[in-house]
Amino acid sequence: MTSDILLRNDSGAIATLTLNTPHTLNALSDDMLDALQGQFDALMQDKSIRVVILKGNGKAFCAGHNLKEMTTARQAEDGGKQYFLDLFAKCTKMMTTIPKLPQPVICQPHGLATAAGCQLVASCDLAVTDTETKFGVNGVNIGLFCSTPMVALSRNIPRKHAFEMLTTGKFIPASKAQDLGLVNKVVSPAELEQETQALAEQIAAKLGAAVAIGKQAFYEQIQMPLDQAYAYTGDVMAQNMLYRDTEEGIAAFLEKRAPEWSQN
Amino acid sequence: MTSDILLRNDSGAIATLTLNTPHTLNALSDDMLDALQGQFDALMQDKSIRVVILKGNGKAFCAGHNLKEMTTARQAEDGGKQYFLDLFAKCTKMMTTIPKLPQPVICQPHGLATAAGCQLVASCDLAVTDTETKFGVNGVNIGLFCSTPMVALSRNIPRKHAFEMLTTGKFIPASKAQDLGLVNKVVSPAELEQETQALAEQIAAKLGAAVAIGKQAFYEQIQMPLDQAYAYTGDVMAQNMLYRDTEEGIAAFLEKRAPEWSQN
Amino acid sequence: MTSDILLRNDSGAIATLTLNTPHTLNALSDDMLDALQGQFDALMQDKSIRVVILKGNGKAFCAGHNLKEMTTARQAEDGGKQYFLDLFAKCTKMMTTIPKLPQPVICQPHGLATAAGCQLVASCDLAVTDTETKFGVNGVNIGLFCSTPMVALSRNIPRKHAFEMLTTGKFIPASKAQDLGLVNKVVSPAELEQETQALAEQIAAKLGAAVAIGKQAFYEQIQMPLDQAYAYTGDVMAQNMLYRDTEEGIAAFLEKRAPEWSQN
Repeated sequence: MTSDILLRNDSGAIATLTLNTPHTLNALSDDMLDALQGQFDALMQDKSIRVVILKGNGKAFCAGHNLKEMTTARQAEDGGKQYFLDLFAKCTKMMTTIPKLPQPVICQPHGLATAAGCQLVASCDLAVTDTETKFGVNGVNIGLFCSTPMVALSRNIPRKHAFEMLTTGKFIPASKAQDLGLVNKVVSPAELEQETQALAEQIAAKLGAAVAIGKQAFYEQIQMPLDQAYAYTGDVMAQNMLYRDTEEGIAAFLEKRAPEWSQN
Repeated sequence: MTSDILLRNDSGAIATLTLNTPHTLNALSDDMLDALQGQFDALMQDKSIRVVILKGNGKAFCAGHNLKEMTTARQAEDGGKQYFLDLFAKCTKMMTTIPKLPQPVICQPHGLATAAGCQLVASCDLAVTDTETKFGVNGVNIGLFCSTPMVALSRNIPRKHAFEMLTTGKFIPASKAQDLGLVNKVVSPAELEQETQALAEQIAAKLGAAVAIGKQAFYEQIQMPLDQAYAYTGDVMAQNMLYRDTEEGIAAFLEKRAPEWSQN
Repeated sequence: MTSDILLRNDSGAIATLTLNTPHTLNALSDDMLDALQGQFDALMQDKSIRVVILKGNGKAFCAGHNLKEMTTARQAEDGGKQYFLDLFAKCTKMMTTIPKLPQPVICQPHGLATAAGCQLVASCDLAVTDTETKFGVNGVNIGLFCSTPMVALSRNIPRKHAFEMLTTGKFIPASKAQDLGLVNKVVSPAELEQETQALAEQIAAKLGAAVAIGKQAFYEQIQMPLDQAYAYTGDVMAQNMLYRDTEEGIAAFLEKRAPEWSQN
């Protein structure tokens, strides 16, 4: 499954995906989008993995779409229109696969996360970054408003701040990204790897079946009216209560001992 | 109406409900849920009360559901399924009665607010806490994802932070709860009682009918598309303008005197 | 187009609207609402303007509705009901025209922004203020809950903080308005004019057509379910890619030169 442009490394229940085209600042080329989709599709079925980390090699996490590739596509008879529609549809499919995965996905941006790269941060369930990272949706600087990235961004941060980033193209530092809710935690560059790992291990130690049913419910309920959200999650909780491992988890808690779960 | 497990104390237009099973950390047992529902149903009709305070006795505000009671229910033929469905439906009814009350409800958590206890904080209209209080949705630690609590939580705080709390089970301190929007104010433990009381008195001094129509509109409009929200609240404001006490309030303001309202 | 009560001053691609009834604290009287609507309607068609600044003369930005005018309307046979319905509909039309304008609108509140004046801040796309400004939705103090202002406010800031402002009528300082997301930036009073101008110029330098399609998409997608939002913005991005000026913007970026856009 692993390719040169997207590395996968599994360690216990944690899979780490590494964007590996540093010469393009890990741009989301057609090939990179395919590689990510391929890995996510595989992870969707992979019961041995309980947490995914997504990071990048080189000096930037991800600089967004590959503008050279997009420019080449203009040579088609329709000026590239169909290619662009397909490209954004493919990118959207990849981005929206992340919340559909049973495993939480932790983004580990460093350096730069711009345009669709910033969207990738916003699309992940969690994000840990370092103090040197900058975030921006700067397509507006070249006349291409970051309209798809804003779907994810505007569901992460308050709307006036999202609007400012989108219309000014300005970068925000990691500290502001944290204040706004775009990332969970900011650490020093030297600690980034181990802090992300620690968060991943903490979640990997939980009952995977509970995390999976909860993650799915999280994104379903957040789009529902309140009454519908509660009707739905009430069923989810009753279902979760009937898991044998949950019975064991509660019993262990009441008996003040560690649970013995069946999960790998 | 008052019971040993849930105390009610009225002082002027302020009703204070106190969870009173400190030995269970004020767990939301079947009886406690019934007692809360009973008090809220009574308050729904109580014109003499304009603000409600909800707090707990003992070292913690509320530790969520009663796991012993839930474990006992597993002995039923269906493994407890119907009981769990009924329990979460009952809990949901209680939680969603709070925004439907005409009176603002101020939560005054101290010590711990975990799982459904944290949901209770999120479900109240306002919350004042002290610097020593910790908040968590830690069901995931025992294999039971806090799926119903997240409905309220994810409507209070940014989604990446909600997701982190839900999947790590980690507690956040009061200061972070305030930064995220889960509570309005954090004071010292010595000031908690008086600061909550001061907020309650401030709101109780307003015209109750205006607060009631406004509170109802607040939760209705927040779920509507923008145009529908405005059409609805435009009607609400016109209706509010026709209250005799509002006429007096505006007249008093223009004449630079205190209003003489008919409210009790 | 310009009137004594609402001044318009164009400088390059930036139009500045100034509320100019300082003796009423720039209240949103019938005439002021008409004047604002007139200017916005004109700006809707004005291709030469790429950014709008909205500010006020005198000691306050805007104190909300004109209570004297509203009180006079009570003398009608229906006690003013139809007038109030018409007034709130007119006000809503003006407020909701702002997100529909192709140009970003930067609010520059100073002094006070209360009730519908605070709604005006919330309704603008961006806001820059100074350290001395206070914000409040204080209608509750006179028995008139700020039900229409809360539509905009509750889409800008976390709900518990919105609820507190609405039910206590208390003012928040500029620093808190920034923390909550109601304004983008807080500067010293001496810098307010130039900082707002700088933000306006920054945005005015972008490709107006890209900003216009992006702004429209911003408010459309924010109300859609995730999948629909992506389907819609994918089309928007493909359309944006086909702009001749966007082709030039991307080409210039790849060639490391400044773009030569056709915009005025």
